[in-house]
Amino acid sequence: MYELISVDDHIIEPPDVWTDRLPAKYAEQAPRVVELDNGTEAWLLNGVPEATMGLNAVAGRPPEDWDTDPLRYSDMIESCYNPTQRARDMAADGVVGSICFPSLLGFAGAKLLQFEDKELALAMCQAYNDWIFDGWCAAAPDLYIPMVMTPMWDAHLCAAEVRRTAAKGARCITFFDDPGGIGLPDLWGEYWDPLWDALSETGLVVNCHIGVSGHLPFPAGAPFHVTIMLAQVTGAIGLVNLLESPTLRKWPKLQFALSEGGLGWIPAQLERCDRMWEKHKHWSKLDDLLPSDIFKRNFYGTFVDDQIGIDLRHHIGADRIMWESDFPHVETPWPDSQDVIKRLMHDVPEDEAVAMTSGNARRAYRWPASR
Amino acid sequence: MYELISVDDHIIEPPDVWTDRLPAKYAEQAPRVVELDNGTEAWLLNGVPEATMGLNAVAGRPPEDWDTDPLRYSDMIESCYNPTQRARDMAADGVVGSICFPSLLGFAGAKLLQFEDKELALAMCQAYNDWIFDGWCAAAPDLYIPMVMTPMWDAHLCAAEVRRTAAKGARCITFFDDPGGIGLPDLWGEYWDPLWDALSETGLVVNCHIGVSGHLPFPAGAPFHVTIMLAQVTGAIGLVNLLESPTLRKWPKLQFALSEGGLGWIPAQLERCDRMWEKHKHWSKLDDLLPSDIFKRNFYGTFVDDQIGIDLRHHIGADRIMWESDFPHVETPWPDSQDVIKRLMHDVPEDEAVAMTSGNARRAYRWPASR
Repeated sequence: MYELISVDDHIIEPPDVWTDRLPAKYAEQAPRVVELDNGTEAWLLNGVPEATMGLNAVAGRPPEDWDTDPLRYSDMIESCYNPTQRARDMAADGVVGSICFPSLLGFAGAKLLQFEDKELALAMCQAYNDWIFDGWCAAAPDLYIPMVMTPMWDAHLCAAEVRRTAAKGARCITFFDDPGGIGLPDLWGEYWDPLWDALSETGLVVNCHIGVSGHLPFPAGAPFHVTIMLAQVTGAIGLVNLLESPTLRKWPKLQFALSEGGLGWIPAQLERCDRMWEKHKHWSKLDDLLPSDIFKRNFYGTFVDDQIGIDLRHHIGADRIMWESDFPHVETPWPDSQDVIKRLMHDVPEDEAVAMTSGNARRAYRWPASR
Repeated sequence: MYELISVDDHIIEPPDVWTDRLPAKYAEQAPRVVELDNGTEAWLLNGVPEATMGLNAVAGRPPEDWDTDPLRYSDMIESCYNPTQRARDMAADGVVGSICFPSLLGFAGAKLLQFEDKELALAMCQAYNDWIFDGWCAAAPDLYIPMVMTPMWDAHLCAAEVRRTAAKGARCITFFDDPGGIGLPDLWGEYWDPLWDALSETGLVVNCHIGVSGHLPFPAGAPFHVTIMLAQVTGAIGLVNLLESPTLRKWPKLQFALSEGGLGWIPAQLERCDRMWEKHKHWSKLDDLLPSDIFKRNFYGTFVDDQIGIDLRHHIGADRIMWESDFPHVETPWPDSQDVIKRLMHDVPEDEAVAMTSGNARRAYRWPASR
């Protein structure tokens, strides 16, 4: 049995995250779960109903029952939202470490941008981050690797929140591979310097989930499953933009994980980047850093079930690959993760298999904390 | 020496394409080459100056001299625009077949959409297509495989132009992998049925050059070389949209080539498509056609210099891969194509190497015509 560390799982927040933690003056504005007139259950967020889409809580349900309709808590298995139950379910699957993304506010918290009252938005962000420690991770402190969100409308606030939560044991943040993709300042100016300073100083990893930066392809007329099939394209866009940006030249220690990005496309993308670097370096005035070398210094690719990526691991770096379960989303192999891993690793040397399923994550996230 | 067939080269149109061929009543509107006040040379197209960007005619110039500035004809080697000289240069490189994309009107002719007078636009399209036969291919009829553009604003006109040019010997059209991406009707309705009928009936291949459907990524703030490094993303979007569309279910004989699309990303994209097909087939009501099977029936991938794609050829189908030179653009290996091919094919069985460098193209495009 492999000891698995999953670097991309998802929390369905329980109803009390903000009602129990926001300052009293925000009691009215705290997101809460309500019953809608149409008979569904939804969060009320900034006055707008936000349901849990069925595809985001499929674990334990047969594929024949999946769809995009709203789900109630009572339709989900308990470990979607209960960290104690989830710890049991993870243990049964061999998972010894888990990084969990938020849901209600977006995988990188971008819905906080909709709040005009930025003091409230900051309180929302900090309440979530505090809850991650005392409400989620506390239920199984050896399992859950703390990841926090940022007040992304202000790089100085981001830096302060990184330092505040790093002191509490945070190991990583959820952030945008391309903040410019959702209208925030882009990576090519100096706006984010305070954040990169704080991350470089604290050693927190930047987890960039596919899709958070607004580059998801929606071909005209196409049904949603076409977008799902294409989702890893957003990882390619974020990766190449970062590879070429000033960020990794000024902060060479930063570490980025391409959460739910998949692996198989990375070797060809790096090969193309290196070839185009060679072709265009003169007129584009590029420096001597090969894109593929920057990747192997600053990035981790991730996989769920990706045979081509595992077969091509030496083009990526077997020390630059991490496993993820994506629980309780559609990609999750739970509760059969061991079977999937054994199939994927059938001709992989044991040391590489261990590195890719847990060792690299232990190193990247300095986990478990007690070691 | 390999006999090479290039399925993606580019024409810099000589100045007389339209002035010599449009009906007399359009003498005023015919695109022509003019001298601009800023000392550069440009086409006047629909009243707007259109220069030849330096990166689109780099063959024969050292990389240190490349840039995006406008080029004059006198700055280019003659074979950019002279089909007789090009035939000599191709022969020296071992190229025995060449499909050439237009430049002035866009790689798929989309600038015709800017003409309000659609009678003029149709005359422009037909003049170009007639010139392809009597002005370009006639200079080396065994070398140049005729490709035509379409009057893409009207599917019935497209069908008629396909039939008209097929009768003259056309072997393929340049078209959009996702017409919906530039505001034309998308692939999910019945608008294009007359075109697919005509293509299916005549056997013309649909060549879809990367970037023609408007999906090029431009991350905010990023310099242009980032977009170039990411250009194959547009091939992925077009491919997956087509794979899932009704088109290849109703016209199973159609053949698409992903011009300048590269190969290395295709295996991982197909693996992801198949896995997502399995996960989502119930709620998305998908039929039993596996995306990877449709690929192997209806698509050709292309390569210039793509070792990972060649190494993974059995995931794509060694009978579904074609070579291209991209002459005179940046990717071209000319005049060293033989060296690049030998490097790429160093451990590939001879029959597969021949198939990928010429055999598959001979079959797809029924070439040479005299056989």
